[in-house]
Amino acid sequence: MQSALDLDRRDRLAGFRKRFAIHDDRILYLDGNSLGRLPLKTVELVESLIHREWGERLIRSWNERWLDLPGRIAAKIASIIGAEKDEVFVGDSTSFNLYKLAFGALRYHSGRSKIVTDSLNFPSDLYILEGLIRNHFPDRTLETVGSDDDIHVDEQDIEDRLDANTALVALSLVTFKSSFMYDMARISQKARESGTLVLWDLSHAAGAVPVHLKDTHADLAVGCTYKYLNGGPGAPAFLYVRKELQEKLLNPVWGWFGHAKPFDFSPVYAPQSSIEKYRVGTPAVLSLAAVEPGLDMILEAGIDNIREKSLAQSRFLLDLIREYLVPEGFTIGTPEADNHRGSHVSVRHPEGYRINRAMIEPGDGSRQIIPDFRPPDNIRLGVAPLYTSFSDLFEAVARMKQITGEKLYESYGTEKLRVT
Amino acid sequence: MQSALDLDRRDRLAGFRKRFAIHDDRILYLDGNSLGRLPLKTVELVESLIHREWGERLIRSWNERWLDLPGRIAAKIASIIGAEKDEVFVGDSTSFNLYKLAFGALRYHSGRSKIVTDSLNFPSDLYILEGLIRNHFPDRTLETVGSDDDIHVDEQDIEDRLDANTALVALSLVTFKSSFMYDMARISQKARESGTLVLWDLSHAAGAVPVHLKDTHADLAVGCTYKYLNGGPGAPAFLYVRKELQEKLLNPVWGWFGHAKPFDFSPVYAPQSSIEKYRVGTPAVLSLAAVEPGLDMILEAGIDNIREKSLAQSRFLLDLIREYLVPEGFTIGTPEADNHRGSHVSVRHPEGYRINRAMIEPGDGSRQIIPDFRPPDNIRLGVAPLYTSFSDLFEAVARMKQITGEKLYESYGTEKLRVT
Repeated sequence: MQSALDLDRRDRLAGFRKRFAIHDDRILYLDGNSLGRLPLKTVELVESLIHREWGERLIRSWNERWLDLPGRIAAKIASIIGAEKDEVFVGDSTSFNLYKLAFGALRYHSGRSKIVTDSLNFPSDLYILEGLIRNHFPDRTLETVGSDDDIHVDEQDIEDRLDANTALVALSLVTFKSSFMYDMARISQKARESGTLVLWDLSHAAGAVPVHLKDTHADLAVGCTYKYLNGGPGAPAFLYVRKELQEKLLNPVWGWFGHAKPFDFSPVYAPQSSIEKYRVGTPAVLSLAAVEPGLDMILEAGIDNIREKSLAQSRFLLDLIREYLVPEGFTIGTPEADNHRGSHVSVRHPEGYRINRAMIEPGDGSRQIIPDFRPPDNIRLGVAPLYTSFSDLFEAVARMKQITGEKLYESYGTEKLRVT
Repeated sequence: MQSALDLDRRDRLAGFRKRFAIHDDRILYLDGNSLGRLPLKTVELVESLIHREWGERLIRSWNERWLDLPGRIAAKIASIIGAEKDEVFVGDSTSFNLYKLAFGALRYHSGRSKIVTDSLNFPSDLYILEGLIRNHFPDRTLETVGSDDDIHVDEQDIEDRLDANTALVALSLVTFKSSFMYDMARISQKARESGTLVLWDLSHAAGAVPVHLKDTHADLAVGCTYKYLNGGPGAPAFLYVRKELQEKLLNPVWGWFGHAKPFDFSPVYAPQSSIEKYRVGTPAVLSLAAVEPGLDMILEAGIDNIREKSLAQSRFLLDLIREYLVPEGFTIGTPEADNHRGSHVSVRHPEGYRINRAMIEPGDGSRQIIPDFRPPDNIRLGVAPLYTSFSDLFEAVARMKQITGEKLYESYGTEKLRVT
């Protein structure tokens, strides 16, 4: 524990923790990879939005504030993921954005029959791809590399499938279960050589690891803002399209906010040729506006500093797991090489589900610890460097050792919560 | 003015006005048909959502509150629009929902080549339909009845086009410019006879006029929640699919929230057969939750009472317009028959744009009046019975008479605001 306290004392990002709503220390939150914490600035912003912008200024706020929101927020996301501001759109959900982009990619490469993905990708992304094939492109096939129980993907396996017949390769840069992280430059390079369009889901990467879309010549990307970006529950997603592709790719959903002149109310559609063509309906202003303070903090802290702390924390955590949890029957479910690991650490245990419940619902007065659980046996410990301390990680491991060592989990049932 | 005050005194819904955030009487707001006012309950609800649900309960709120939100809110919308609770989905934007439904309709009627609409429909709806034809169904054609300068649609013109070759008829129940309202039962009946699927856009109707989707055997509907439902800027939209059609129609966008078991994270898609199949991504919780208090007020007031007051107010307004504004060069841009009029009243004037600006930005210390303007000459006066008073309407007309009579509009420019 002394070592954890020392590390916290030397942590240059420690000051950010105070800028989140952390009301009490009864909760030890390790699920920032699923829903980020509430920035204090967001509280102020939402209050002003409700009282002043909606309540008082009413419809005038569209001109005064809201029409500029998507562009301003997109520019901040762009700078976090290594893109230009005219390459990012913010709005809608990750799934819908993936639909728009993957549809455009498949239509563009009409002569190529393959889509490549991996089994560690989000199921939600696989569903969209399956749906595109079944409902729009029945002559295409989806090749899924690996098994969903894997920790690593062999990048060579992906590369070997990128050829002149591959339309699209769609991958999560950081995979949601194991935290495996791709070498983005390597995959993008191989995709470029074969003319395959590459699409990255950045949901588990944005705000946690440096992403260089432009420098690696990535074609397409999507991602959510409610994990490491701290944008709030179900906050709008983003998408990225490399500048040169924006005129070439079709967005099949012709929405009025993607019209070149939406407020002329012309009956004839004239799409934007820029990234704005991906706008569809009226933006969900409350949810969208709440995204901005979280982005500002990431930009202020600097993504490289965040990554440095994240790696120090996940190394520290892996060391603790090896020392205290492996002897209790846990296995490490996350790559141990820094360059292939995102910002959460997965540990696996046959009793993972009940251990997770014992952490969340302690019966013995000890502190409530909130990680999350992904079937069948995977406890994810989310490291969110802006508010996670080294002491948090030490305490979580000590508690997990106690829960397994004393078999405290045995008093918990196996009936499923809806989200765990 | 005496008559307006008398009418206000006898108004049984007058008490609802106090339940909206109306901070001062410097603003006379007549744009509830574009962005509804802020219910006071919404202020409380959003505060609790931010502080307690996001800030304190964090990820646990998905189980405790958020997973149930869409179903509960959809059920309330259903009861406002005359549908069953398992026939309505709430989420995404109106345009995206229209895309999902119209795609399903065109795929279903693969042997029919025509889509029928009218030129008074929202341009945004026309864009989605155009896009569907261009990008997915190139052998279909869109027949658009009437001209976008019309006040009325001749319903016979629509009926005459519904035949065995018509896949879909898509109309706004209340049209956004002129406030023309269709006889829903008549169109639905004729659509049924020809086997045409009928789709209603209820954006300008929900919460303002009684809608009987079930009783008129309507097939499909979409609509927004930020106008008469007072859901907040860009609040999530809804869609309706008649129960018997839910298994037959395809939603082409296979999202994980539409999966039969989303939290099993299975790699294989298994869509819901119910209305839930229209769910795509994670709901935008902040924007969605804020919709509920507005719905509760509509339900409490009763849609028939709201309609009764709305008609009394629009009749009163039309009388004032005839008496005071027609002599100043205004024409009435709204049907005068009650059964063909929604809840706003349009007046037209060649100087409409500058008159609208003079109302919004008074230079002479008089009260700011906020209607809205739709090109080329259309000032819309929104009657929102829960907070609009008869005195408001009298004052607005008196001011419009002054602005035209004294040519006050001449000191305003014609440069366009982005949204007016």
